[in-house]
Amino acid sequence: MSETYSSAIQIARDLIRCPSVTPSEGGALGFLEELLSGAGFTVDRVTFSDDDTPDVENLFASIGSGSPHFVFAGHTDVVPPGNETDWSHGPFSGDIAEGILFGRGAVDMKGGIACFAAAALDFLKSRGDEFGGTISLLITGDEEGPAVNGTVKLLEWAEGQGHKFDACIVGEPTNPAALGDQIKVGRRGSLSGTVTVTGMQGHVAYPEHANNPVPGLMALMSELDAVRFDEGNDRFQPSNLEIVTIDVGNPAFNIIPARAEARFNIRYNDEWTLETLKAKITSTLEDAAPKTLNWEVEYRRDASESFLTRDDALIKTLSAAVEAKMGRVPELTTGGGTSDARFIKNYCPVVEFGLVGKTMHKVDECVALSDVDGLAAIYRVFLDDYFKAAKGA
Amino acid sequence: MSETYSSAIQIARDLIRCPSVTPSEGGALGFLEELLSGAGFTVDRVTFSDDDTPDVENLFASIGSGSPHFVFAGHTDVVPPGNETDWSHGPFSGDIAEGILFGRGAVDMKGGIACFAAAALDFLKSRGDEFGGTISLLITGDEEGPAVNGTVKLLEWAEGQGHKFDACIVGEPTNPAALGDQIKVGRRGSLSGTVTVTGMQGHVAYPEHANNPVPGLMALMSELDAVRFDEGNDRFQPSNLEIVTIDVGNPAFNIIPARAEARFNIRYNDEWTLETLKAKITSTLEDAAPKTLNWEVEYRRDASESFLTRDDALIKTLSAAVEAKMGRVPELTTGGGTSDARFIKNYCPVVEFGLVGKTMHKVDECVALSDVDGLAAIYRVFLDDYFKAAKGA
Ligand SMILES: [Zn+2]
Ligand SMILES: [Zn+2]
Repeated sequence: MSETYSSAIQIARDLIRCPSVTPSEGGALGFLEELLSGAGFTVDRVTFSDDDTPDVENLFASIGSGSPHFVFAGHTDVVPPGNETDWSHGPFSGDIAEGILFGRGAVDMKGGIACFAAAALDFLKSRGDEFGGTISLLITGDEEGPAVNGTVKLLEWAEGQGHKFDACIVGEPTNPAALGDQIKVGRRGSLSGTVTVTGMQGHVAYPEHANNPVPGLMALMSELDAVRFDEGNDRFQPSNLEIVTIDVGNPAFNIIPARAEARFNIRYNDEWTLETLKAKITSTLEDAAPKTLNWEVEYRRDASESFLTRDDALIKTLSAAVEAKMGRVPELTTGGGTSDARFIKNYCPVVEFGLVGKTMHKVDECVALSDVDGLAAIYRVFLDDYFKAAKGA
Repeated sequence: MSETYSSAIQIARDLIRCPSVTPSEGGALGFLEELLSGAGFTVDRVTFSDDDTPDVENLFASIGSGSPHFVFAGHTDVVPPGNETDWSHGPFSGDIAEGILFGRGAVDMKGGIACFAAAALDFLKSRGDEFGGTISLLITGDEEGPAVNGTVKLLEWAEGQGHKFDACIVGEPTNPAALGDQIKVGRRGSLSGTVTVTGMQGHVAYPEHANNPVPGLMALMSELDAVRFDEGNDRFQPSNLEIVTIDVGNPAFNIIPARAEARFNIRYNDEWTLETLKAKITSTLEDAAPKTLNWEVEYRRDASESFLTRDDALIKTLSAAVEAKMGRVPELTTGGGTSDARFIKNYCPVVEFGLVGKTMHKVDECVALSDVDGLAAIYRVFLDDYFKAAKGA
């Protein structure tokens, strides 16, 4: 068993062996600090605090100067492994068997960080520090947790340090089945809300002395559920609303309840802003509600806007790198859940491209060694072409 | 404070002073046993047991022989007083202030039992044991509780002892505002059920991999809620269905739930039997459900049939006694909740007439002394006329 592995695989393995379940750094950031500062990066370890949530360590590493300033974003924290005995290889063992590297974070996303770090180090070795720009790594330890002491604050901090980014790749596992499937060039927005109808409690035998809120709430929510918000467009799926729960919590079959509540979430595309969407939902409910109905809608504050990145230098260069290495053109998509890209898009054009997500958050999370080497090679080609193009321009 | 009170008031007061919160007998049945056996009644104390519910004591007292056999039904158990310091007079004090007797059970229904006991004792004193029939008291200690070890079993027990009843008055507080308002001559039936829709859990960002049960359940329940079961008739209100709760219990705004459940109760009149009503509900749901919907309806076993008593000897005699004492003709009604009359109607014609229910189950439950004397007088006239008519027939 004296095989030697590529540096991307070795870095991925070393990172997996750090038990960095949110909010613990687990040694992963220390390992990256040593690796990157050894290669000439200026490395900052930054810890953020907030109410009601644990302190979290983050890392910012930078090399070079001037523009273009390319930043790679990722997270070393991982979700808990669950029952470790369910794993065929220890979740923090970094075992390799038959060409597969096992462990929590293999694809989400220590593997992605390893690929980028290996690519950057190799690029710097061949080009030297004077490659004509800046490369940074923005690494958080709070992506899988509350996301309060992570990317949002690290971006603010970096801006305060004078960093201005020109483009970003987030190394999340964007490929559904095979490396090269998809580059995510945007994300739908997300808006959650609660609709409450208040009636009057009473005994079912005397409905004339009560006011059942359930039929009124069902009528409002049926109307809301029936809205076809849009048809989607060339880059986005149609917006979609789901009623995630309705609750009354009345244990008694002979009591008419006083209050009924429904909650919804909508994933919406760039046909809407948060403002126009809220206005549409509110007016739908207003139109559906009889005047006598006592109802209200409350929107949650954790909403996010949709965004679409239209930066050719970034998208075309990455797409070409994928095609050069994988022999096929990746689809540009906007589907799926949210990621830290929703924060980064306020600072610079951002896309997401990483490993294959199939095993993420599951028992026996793993990655093919060929995918690790493939992604490292794609990132390597991207760095070459991105800075070459900038120089040529 | 040396006022003397009528025997009805004195009995009511003595009963209130027994803290007989279900399932405790609290001395109330012992008191009645002594009172009634002292007046010549044969008194049986009968304790019933069942799984998962406390043992409960009941009392059956009987005097006379042959027919007609009139039975008075009631309960000595009371609902808990709640916070005793909220009461202006102790809930078990039997305090009298300004013509009002205070205490838990004053109207529901120790007061009713006291009125009937006083009336029967007075009737027997004037007519002697040979009044040409039988008078019984069927007193349960399990009306406010699970009603498992009470009236149902006591009726079976009495039948086993050879008792055949010809007519019954239940002494529940039937009058909404003033003594003489209403005689209840029937009750609506009650049917409860649960409708469940099962879908498939998933993430809101990927609705194509999930199946939200909420819209399907709302559609079923809206259809059910819209059914106009009937228009009512000369003796009954229209049947009425209430959705008493809808529950999903999903705490996450980003998860589509797997299951949603709604519960309903219907109070229905004699246009329906339990069977035709269930068939109507099931077929309404079947018609409303798309073929792909995974749903089911389950009916609770504690359903009751509606009934209407049409016994002239009982209803006209009681109505005339009310008119004689109160100067007005009581309305014959079938509204309101269920009572033990739903069990008694399987044995003999039954009506309900008692005190004014306004304060029942509330803090400061109380009864006007004039109402206690008035009801005792009504019952007294009824007994006279009922047995006189039977003799004349
Ligand atoms: Zn991730
Ligand atoms: Zn009662």
